[in-house]
Amino acid sequence: MQRAQTLGSGTMSEKWVSILLLLQLCCFGCGSCGKVLAWPLEFSHWINMKTILDELTQKGHRVTVLVPSVTVFIDSTDSSGLNYEVFPVSNTKEKALHTMEAFLDEMMNIAESSSHLKAMWKFHELMGEFNGRLKSICESVVFNKILMEKLQKTGYDVLISDPVFPCGDLIAEMLQIPLVNSLRFTMGNVYEKYCGFLPCPLSYVPVSPGKLTDKMSFMERVQNMLLSLLFDFWLHSFDKTLEEFYSEALGRPTTLCETMGKAEMWLIRTYWDFEFPRPYLPNFEFVGGLHCKPAKPLPEEMEKFVQSSGDHGIVVFSLGSMVKNLTDEKSNVIAAALAQIPQKVLWRYKGKKPATLGPNTKTYDWIPQNDLLGHPKTKAFITHGGTNGIYEAIYHGIPMVGVPMFADQPDNIAHMKAKGAAVEVNFNKMTTADLLNALKTVINDPSYKENAMRLSRIHHDQPVKPLDRAVFWIEFVMRHKGAKHLRPAAHDLTWYQYHSLDVIGFLLACVATVVFIVAKSCLFCCRKFGKTGKKQKRA
Amino acid sequence: MQRAQTLGSGTMSEKWVSILLLLQLCCFGCGSCGKVLAWPLEFSHWINMKTILDELTQKGHRVTVLVPSVTVFIDSTDSSGLNYEVFPVSNTKEKALHTMEAFLDEMMNIAESSSHLKAMWKFHELMGEFNGRLKSICESVVFNKILMEKLQKTGYDVLISDPVFPCGDLIAEMLQIPLVNSLRFTMGNVYEKYCGFLPCPLSYVPVSPGKLTDKMSFMERVQNMLLSLLFDFWLHSFDKTLEEFYSEALGRPTTLCETMGKAEMWLIRTYWDFEFPRPYLPNFEFVGGLHCKPAKPLPEEMEKFVQSSGDHGIVVFSLGSMVKNLTDEKSNVIAAALAQIPQKVLWRYKGKKPATLGPNTKTYDWIPQNDLLGHPKTKAFITHGGTNGIYEAIYHGIPMVGVPMFADQPDNIAHMKAKGAAVEVNFNKMTTADLLNALKTVINDPSYKENAMRLSRIHHDQPVKPLDRAVFWIEFVMRHKGAKHLRPAAHDLTWYQYHSLDVIGFLLACVATVVFIVAKSCLFCCRKFGKTGKKQKRA
Repeated sequence: MQRAQTLGSGTMSEKWVSILLLLQLCCFGCGSCGKVLAWPLEFSHWINMKTILDELTQKGHRVTVLVPSVTVFIDSTDSSGLNYEVFPVSNTKEKALHTMEAFLDEMMNIAESSSHLKAMWKFHELMGEFNGRLKSICESVVFNKILMEKLQKTGYDVLISDPVFPCGDLIAEMLQIPLVNSLRFTMGNVYEKYCGFLPCPLSYVPVSPGKLTDKMSFMERVQNMLLSLLFDFWLHSFDKTLEEFYSEALGRPTTLCETMGKAEMWLIRTYWDFEFPRPYLPNFEFVGGLHCKPAKPLPEEMEKFVQSSGDHGIVVFSLGSMVKNLTDEKSNVIAAALAQIPQKVLWRYKGKKPATLGPNTKTYDWIPQNDLLGHPKTKAFITHGGTNGIYEAIYHGIPMVGVPMFADQPDNIAHMKAKGAAVEVNFNKMTTADLLNALKTVINDPSYKENAMRLSRIHHDQPVKPLDRAVFWIEFVMRHKGAKHLRPAAHDLTWYQYHSLDVIGFLLACVATVVFIVAKSCLFCCRKFGKTGKKQKRA
Repeated sequence: MQRAQTLGSGTMSEKWVSILLLLQLCCFGCGSCGKVLAWPLEFSHWINMKTILDELTQKGHRVTVLVPSVTVFIDSTDSSGLNYEVFPVSNTKEKALHTMEAFLDEMMNIAESSSHLKAMWKFHELMGEFNGRLKSICESVVFNKILMEKLQKTGYDVLISDPVFPCGDLIAEMLQIPLVNSLRFTMGNVYEKYCGFLPCPLSYVPVSPGKLTDKMSFMERVQNMLLSLLFDFWLHSFDKTLEEFYSEALGRPTTLCETMGKAEMWLIRTYWDFEFPRPYLPNFEFVGGLHCKPAKPLPEEMEKFVQSSGDHGIVVFSLGSMVKNLTDEKSNVIAAALAQIPQKVLWRYKGKKPATLGPNTKTYDWIPQNDLLGHPKTKAFITHGGTNGIYEAIYHGIPMVGVPMFADQPDNIAHMKAKGAAVEVNFNKMTTADLLNALKTVINDPSYKENAMRLSRIHHDQPVKPLDRAVFWIEFVMRHKGAKHLRPAAHDLTWYQYHSLDVIGFLLACVATVVFIVAKSCLFCCRKFGKTGKKQKRA
């Protein structure tokens, strides 16, 4: 698009240079441009990764996205300039959609009915089921000889993978191309910790998604350690199910951590505006909010509605791209709260119009969320707590009311609460008064706005923008065929060597030997001199 | 200088704008410009810090450097634009120079005569003596009421301190201004580890300066742990000597780590081209090589000598700014080796001309080291292994022969050896053949040049240049009055909480209690049912 505009202006010779550059780019590939393969996930994960891939395309790289034929969110016919390699899987799109909706319903039911720990456990069970389905999708790629040969022949320079559901690492290993991981976190940070060797001191680094912060009471630290043990157990059981499949695909024994651990870079979708300060490694780059950008003008009708709010301003409300419907009861509880605030409310909601909907509230099938959050009249954001939405709020300095349901959402809201930029409302037990009070608090207590603005200032005050950093490191990996100089030597150690247990054991044994010899010598001397003394006394 | 040049060109109105800007800068201070206080050290430490301070001055900040009247290296009369606050101390410049030379001689003698471990121990003893002298210099500042009041009144925005010899942290605490540390490392990394909470897993993070790498054998890992214990002991004994003085100055009980740990940022003078990948924290920034810059043309006579080397090229030789003399024996051993290579040699050497000096070797009181290393004819660099010189070699991709003597030099050369860009020659036992062979190896074995070029490529391929990153984070601290969002919560934990020992103890106690209760219950049941069974049998 930008290139086409360039062609429209300038002198004739400039135009010819542009045309030649374009031709070179399209037909022969530019000198420093590479071939990028992507292994994405659906929904918000895709929104985030697509931002990186679009930027890479803009910079002249040829990007190919591996998409299963049953994708429910990724539009493989878009005109973004990305290439989509759609591969067949043994399922229909309708069935996949049905499975996804059933999964979502079950997740919502868990959120509605259970305790947090129980919900997490059920979530893991569901993730286990989901992993099984993903394994079959993964098999559809790695055992598809024609596709793998085609990918091999193309000679990609890098594979960008969303490792929450592993497979990208296996494809990278089979094609022998450098791997870059792009993620918010994996359950319990197990892949980062065990495959990437990210240090996680449990005394001040909360296990994700445990809803804890970096300042924990004694019992919270106990909880954090138990959670860590639980997730470790989960990794090991999950790793075993994948081990056989990975080994079969590679034709040699392997483990999940062996392939995943080969990642050259880990691009983490947070930054220190959101994250609690913690140790990390030089091949981890925190690029949170890379999709954020300044607000564009709103559609005319929407702008009119926003302006009608006067000095009270507006509240933006969205439960994300996955949740489209709520029960009548829940939607009425919410609408009744919204009706009682002086602000105008823009609510992204596709379900039945609630009976309690006030005249100040308008529902929309879709809203330009970033543009609304960047509008000067916006006072608060009611959010399910998805990372993308939270980052848009941070970017524009908008305080939040969090209504988290599942996955990383409770954890994300816990971060924003700890930073003083959000109030949480329990989605299961929420009453109209709860939501109303939360809204009044974040709008009327100036500390929430101040804290949101503080986070915004931190976000905007970085030496390099998050998207540029993400693209820089991907290009670095392409230029240097990896980033081996950033890889910690911990990868070459066994677990007991890593924790220096052999060294500690050896030193303790040395100390014990010395103590033993000294004690024995003393005892020997005492007995000898004792006997001599007695003999002398007797004599 | 640049500003003056700007004034010399442009239209009249442009000139007036420039004059007004200059006036504003000089007389009123610019809007976003701040007041910087610096607590430097001598020699290469100063060369490095001065680069940052000059850049801050260039950007319009007002920089004041605290300099004792007995400084032997810092030129407080230079025309760099820095302000020097020279404070009186109870010593004369001559005495200080004499002390410094005696210290250096002793260090050289240690290097000549002892084993590495013994040398390190002697070095610590000397450092202890030196710390005593520095304490008296520190007292000359903090107990100098007039000076402290003057500094307080100026209202500095940040204090940049070289913490290898502590005092900057105490001044920052007394003036209540944010602190930024700038360092290569402290002995055993003790301040970084205990005051900054930098994680140092001993299995793959070598203790500085232990000459070890990230790939250690079992016995090397044992050595690394013992070194770590040794330095920990050293910190605690040293901390105690300072504790009383710090507490007296602050008027309340304190520790070294309390004041040092308040550092907002730690600017480390290395990068991943030099450093082994290791865990770090978000308030640690690796800005190694920040003083490096492209080579400028050489003086005419020197360029002529360099060009006379033909295809063989040249070798650059310097033992740094501290070492000016060698024994006759040592200088002859060196000169005899240099005489046997086909390259021309430029040797920075102020001592007596050695009898064995070949016609291919020229000695100089001073050499433009960076310009020589950046010259296309340069084939190798013989260096004592100072961080600044090594970084200039990395910047220009020049393989090295390392002749380390003391302080961080053996450790620096160990890094370059491990990266395949240097050969080490033992300064104590060096023969002419040793030096000659080392030179032949780095010049004729292409792997050394390739590795040096690889490090150079890594160094040049960063998203932001090291100096810009250092300045960015200092300005960030000034803009935001700190960088609290990067401070790990570990600072609020006790040592046993930090290592989760209380949590582990509690969980073990829980497990033991459960096991005890289950065992007791089983025993009780067995006895009860056993007795009943026996009774029934008897009945």
